Amino acid sequence: MIIDCHGHYTTAPKALEEFRKRQIDGLKDPSSSPAKDSLRISDDQLRESLEGAQLKLQRNRGTDLTIFSPRAGGMGHHIGNAATSELWSGICNELIHRICALYPENFIGVCQLPQSPGVRPDNCIAELERCVKEYGFIGCNLNPDPSGGYWTDPPLIDKWWYPLYEKMVELDVPAMVHVSASCNPNFHFTGAHYINADTTAFMQFLTSDLFKDFPTLKFIIPHGGGAVPYHWGRYRGIAQDMGRPPLKELLLNNVFFDTCVYHRPGIELLLKVIPADNILFASEMVGAVRGIDPETGHHYDDTKRYIDAIEWISAEDREKIFHGNVRKVYSRFAAR
Amino acid sequence: MIIDCHGHYTTAPKALEEFRKRQIDGLKDPSSSPAKDSLRISDDQLRESLEGAQLKLQRNRGTDLTIFSPRAGGMGHHIGNAATSELWSGICNELIHRICALYPENFIGVCQLPQSPGVRPDNCIAELERCVKEYGFIGCNLNPDPSGGYWTDPPLIDKWWYPLYEKMVELDVPAMVHVSASCNPNFHFTGAHYINADTTAFMQFLTSDLFKDFPTLKFIIPHGGGAVPYHWGRYRGIAQDMGRPPLKELLLNNVFFDTCVYHRPGIELLLKVIPADNILFASEMVGAVRGIDPETGHHYDDTKRYIDAIEWISAEDREKIFHGNVRKVYSRFAAR
Repeated sequence: MIIDCHGHYTTAPKALEEFRKRQIDGLKDPSSSPAKDSLRISDDQLRESLEGAQLKLQRNRGTDLTIFSPRAGGMGHHIGNAATSELWSGICNELIHRICALYPENFIGVCQLPQSPGVRPDNCIAELERCVKEYGFIGCNLNPDPSGGYWTDPPLIDKWWYPLYEKMVELDVPAMVHVSASCNPNFHFTGAHYINADTTAFMQFLTSDLFKDFPTLKFIIPHGGGAVPYHWGRYRGIAQDMGRPPLKELLLNNVFFDTCVYHRPGIELLLKVIPADNILFASEMVGAVRGIDPETGHHYDDTKRYIDAIEWISAEDREKIFHGNVRKVYSRFAAR
Repeated sequence: MIIDCHGHYTTAPKALEEFRKRQIDGLKDPSSSPAKDSLRISDDQLRESLEGAQLKLQRNRGTDLTIFSPRAGGMGHHIGNAATSELWSGICNELIHRICALYPENFIGVCQLPQSPGVRPDNCIAELERCVKEYGFIGCNLNPDPSGGYWTDPPLIDKWWYPLYEKMVELDVPAMVHVSASCNPNFHFTGAHYINADTTAFMQFLTSDLFKDFPTLKFIIPHGGGAVPYHWGRYRGIAQDMGRPPLKELLLNNVFFDTCVYHRPGIELLLKVIPADNILFASEMVGAVRGIDPETGHHYDDTKRYIDAIEWISAEDREKIFHGNVRKVYSRFAAR
């Protein structure tokens, strides 16, 4: 069984985008704010949005199940206020729930959180609990920078985040560290902001004793861990210079990397330097890169091909990467 | 001849740090601001600060010459205002000039610029010109985020920077894109801010036609290009999805990467995916990582060893990486 731990609903019907546009317009002119139930998307529309995209790619590529969450770039936590995010998260999560109900063999849900810059993450607890208990979701996406590229909230190791972590531990769900769109013109969202956030989060964890406080808290750092595996020597060296324990001991019971790296040399590096126990298969399809690589004739984001082509991975490690580690990291996946 | 294109004066005598402290204290209490000539560092003190550090490491590692600039983390462009940065840059650049005069076989200078957040980079032109014409420096370090981690200035592709680029082109000097310390608690400086800035700058260049406007403008992206080579497939794919030309055509006449990657698998990836024409040897010693890797018994930042150990690089490519490309990118190096 091959599980893709990182898929977003990037192909939603236009009605969703239109609703969001009206919601944003309503921030200036409250009289034009849409009612929640004004959004109507039928089951057939959901099916149609997936059949020619994620489901087709699952079949073509030979993957079985995708851990599925709302579009990351669409979370837009920097837009409006906590109430804006609450309504929007509720809507996006409900769509994921409906998709998981329509295709229980193909998708399992992870939720967006109603974060808002400067607002304590305590306000995310209710939505997380609802999604896990009512919808059967198995994790959440946690945005380390709800400001959308200005990084004005405290780092992930700050006690600011602890109430949410307590709930994650209680519910036994991990978080994927995932920013949303960037409203800072310095940062292209999928080309810089995403990758920077991954690198930043890892380095925050490296400097802290967060995992002493929460020994069972788990994070997935997507996009192959940002820059981290490429600079693994740098991170080992910085930790050593700082008198921190070796990274394996310090972090690797709690921090995991996905395989969203879109060329074979990158995947090879990842598998070479990061223990197989800490790597989860993922492609982020349909996502940041949709084209076909002229050098290979295949989609850049068909990451399974790169892994399949590497002969030196043992069968045991391959099994961990493709699904064993998911059962470990997403405890509720195993339990369902 | 082996040229290290990335070294900072990280081992300056204490007097420099003390002067800077007094300068910063003087921002609150102008009466305590130090006069420029109150800083006294003798030639012997300069020699002493280098003999047991950069010079010893050059000898031990078999490198010949370092392209040398003030400590990057010390630039602190976010501190004070344009006048603060002007005084401080002048002092730091003068020390580099004195070092290059003391050891002309070992060091050649690159300057810090008197940047300040929100201040047009036009104010850096005089110092750049002075350092190139009076001191014989061959490049500059350009900070893409003078705010120190809040990224409030325009991206490097904005016309905001064009007057400085015009001067760089006129003087025929490249810039290394290099941030300074981070005052944002989200970003550890050497572990996150540096690497993020490298990735960010590359992605900015990718989206723009900057190099149509300045066909001879050249940037070195340090720290192995941040996350870029590891995600080379992602960047090729994003460029393709955006309808941009292939990266080679779009960027690789103007953008170069150094080899500050502190483990062999990272260096191997870099050399595998980036053309040898675009790679410049560097170690950043004495810099971000000072320890000895217990896995190899050698310094993490002894990057020459990693390159030496890779058998599949041709003699011609090795020559380009170790010094040929420096002559191409730093035109004034060849001319001196």
